[in-house]
Amino acid sequence: MTTAPVPKVLLDAVLGKPTSRLPVWIMRQAGRYLPEYRAVRAKTTNFLELCYTPELATEVTLQPLRRFDLDAAILFSDILVVPDAMGQSVRFETGEGPVLDPVTHQTLAALKPEKALEKLSPVFESVRRIRAAIRPETTLIGFCGSPWTVATYMIGGHGSADQAAARIFALTEPAAFKSLIDMLVDVSVDYLEAQFRAGADVVQLFESWALNLDEVAFSEYVIGPNRRIVEALRKRVPNAPIIGFPRGAAGNLPAYAAATGVNVIGLDYAVPLAFAQSLPKTLGVQGNLDPLRLLAGGDQMDARVCDIIAAFRDRPHIFNLGHGIVPQTPIDHVERLLRVIRES
Amino acid sequence: MTTAPVPKVLLDAVLGKPTSRLPVWIMRQAGRYLPEYRAVRAKTTNFLELCYTPELATEVTLQPLRRFDLDAAILFSDILVVPDAMGQSVRFETGEGPVLDPVTHQTLAALKPEKALEKLSPVFESVRRIRAAIRPETTLIGFCGSPWTVATYMIGGHGSADQAAARIFALTEPAAFKSLIDMLVDVSVDYLEAQFRAGADVVQLFESWALNLDEVAFSEYVIGPNRRIVEALRKRVPNAPIIGFPRGAAGNLPAYAAATGVNVIGLDYAVPLAFAQSLPKTLGVQGNLDPLRLLAGGDQMDARVCDIIAAFRDRPHIFNLGHGIVPQTPIDHVERLLRVIRES
Repeated sequence: MTTAPVPKVLLDAVLGKPTSRLPVWIMRQAGRYLPEYRAVRAKTTNFLELCYTPELATEVTLQPLRRFDLDAAILFSDILVVPDAMGQSVRFETGEGPVLDPVTHQTLAALKPEKALEKLSPVFESVRRIRAAIRPETTLIGFCGSPWTVATYMIGGHGSADQAAARIFALTEPAAFKSLIDMLVDVSVDYLEAQFRAGADVVQLFESWALNLDEVAFSEYVIGPNRRIVEALRKRVPNAPIIGFPRGAAGNLPAYAAATGVNVIGLDYAVPLAFAQSLPKTLGVQGNLDPLRLLAGGDQMDARVCDIIAAFRDRPHIFNLGHGIVPQTPIDHVERLLRVIRES
Repeated sequence: MTTAPVPKVLLDAVLGKPTSRLPVWIMRQAGRYLPEYRAVRAKTTNFLELCYTPELATEVTLQPLRRFDLDAAILFSDILVVPDAMGQSVRFETGEGPVLDPVTHQTLAALKPEKALEKLSPVFESVRRIRAAIRPETTLIGFCGSPWTVATYMIGGHGSADQAAARIFALTEPAAFKSLIDMLVDVSVDYLEAQFRAGADVVQLFESWALNLDEVAFSEYVIGPNRRIVEALRKRVPNAPIIGFPRGAAGNLPAYAAATGVNVIGLDYAVPLAFAQSLPKTLGVQGNLDPLRLLAGGDQMDARVCDIIAAFRDRPHIFNLGHGIVPQTPIDHVERLLRVIRES
């Protein structure tokens, strides 16, 4: 006698199948708003060590699932492990965010993309451990940063409000820029394939800096590389379920949705519901509560949650925030959010 | 014998009248990319003093008109003169941008909006001097910051990538937030009315931080206050020509356009041309070249300029950048931009 496989509601939603309930996860659900996360984080002064130590990465990945009725675990890691694994210096300085030695036209050739996968092997061990530890109905989400977003850090050396360094580089050194993007596409495909092989059910492409681009740049820097990743990955992992999250894509969302081939599009909280409703109904959506509404909590949060859920009843929908949960968020607000979703 | 008044092409475009050529001005056209601006700026350590000294403000306003064939002068000032004039401490520290003593629930009542107009009187003197100095066919643009944008600085104490302080304040202290916005609406109406009386032909509402808001917040913080300013101003200055520039409004642009009553909507460079084309044809648009394309210059700039001009031939259009010109911009790129526009 064989038993039917336990359905994973979140994976099913990504694949456009009917689900028994609305799946939900929370961007940055393993994060500083959890005291148990802060306790693990305090054990190491080096943030990347947390990402590269399977025991610790697995532990923090599992923490939110012990507290909350979530439908997915997301691998604990960072989008900047990729440049780190290619040999660029990446440091996380307290209160400052990441600091990289900026890539230039001259130093680009010194990167070692061929070494990246081996350096990233602890991440795949984390994926295996997480898969073994979570319930069969829980979806495991892997991820990487999309090439443009990773390139903004590699070129700029840090996060910035307008990504000016990378945007200028792309316009003034197009050949060097193209070679960097091509390198990131190739490494990302290898990296995501290995995550699938280790047990990821779904991967998310974090294009966190899809804003601040005109449509010509958006098409070249965002749509093209994301589409190439989707196509190449599906040659190796047939029908690979993929969520694309082009944060700030705004008026470029329809073009992104049409051209990249992702199953689900992540909506940041600035996307109006009516605008998202105009996307093709076969496309799944993920989002899009403002994390500060969760921070503030109460009736205003409940009302917005209900509006979001109502807006997307006619298509695959994964409930999520429209950006990462912020550290000051009270845990009881997260509990309330999940109650409201479950009662909807 | 009377002579017909000389037409102002930019004002005419705002009013939806046919024009003999495509009007153009450049956001931050009086700015650090000009050596003659830097020379004046070096005369004072205090940036606000430049805004409050009619002789200096007039001089820097006129500088770009001496170099370039522009259709408008824009009053040299800053959106933060309004909180300064209400008694909040506003400093401009070199390389850091503005720093304010943040307004709190407690200190809000200490603001003195009733004193603002007198403190701002040098600005009106600048407007008179500029009007007297420019050619009759040159449009004089006045401006203020829109209430939400000004409030983000007043509450946060400085610029920020996500305006989190103001967004949290709005959600957690709604009554205090409303009283601050109401105060800014009232002062802004007085301020813009006085600019018109002093000789401004058009005013622009700079909603520089219209991004990062979900549609509920956008409607309450952006659309409502901008609409109230437009309505109140037109009671005092009938048919006042108004450009609204909600930077980052993205999917909320159609709602902004429909509800505020502005004559022209400023488009940031991330607005796709096809998306802007879907706005009502009676609405004028302004924009929207990426300032970094101007910085980089050359064929890529020319191509984008031609695409922008072609996209808006069927409605009132004012050519502009989609954000302020950056200090590193070569002057000959500006000259080339104007040549391309004039030859289009």
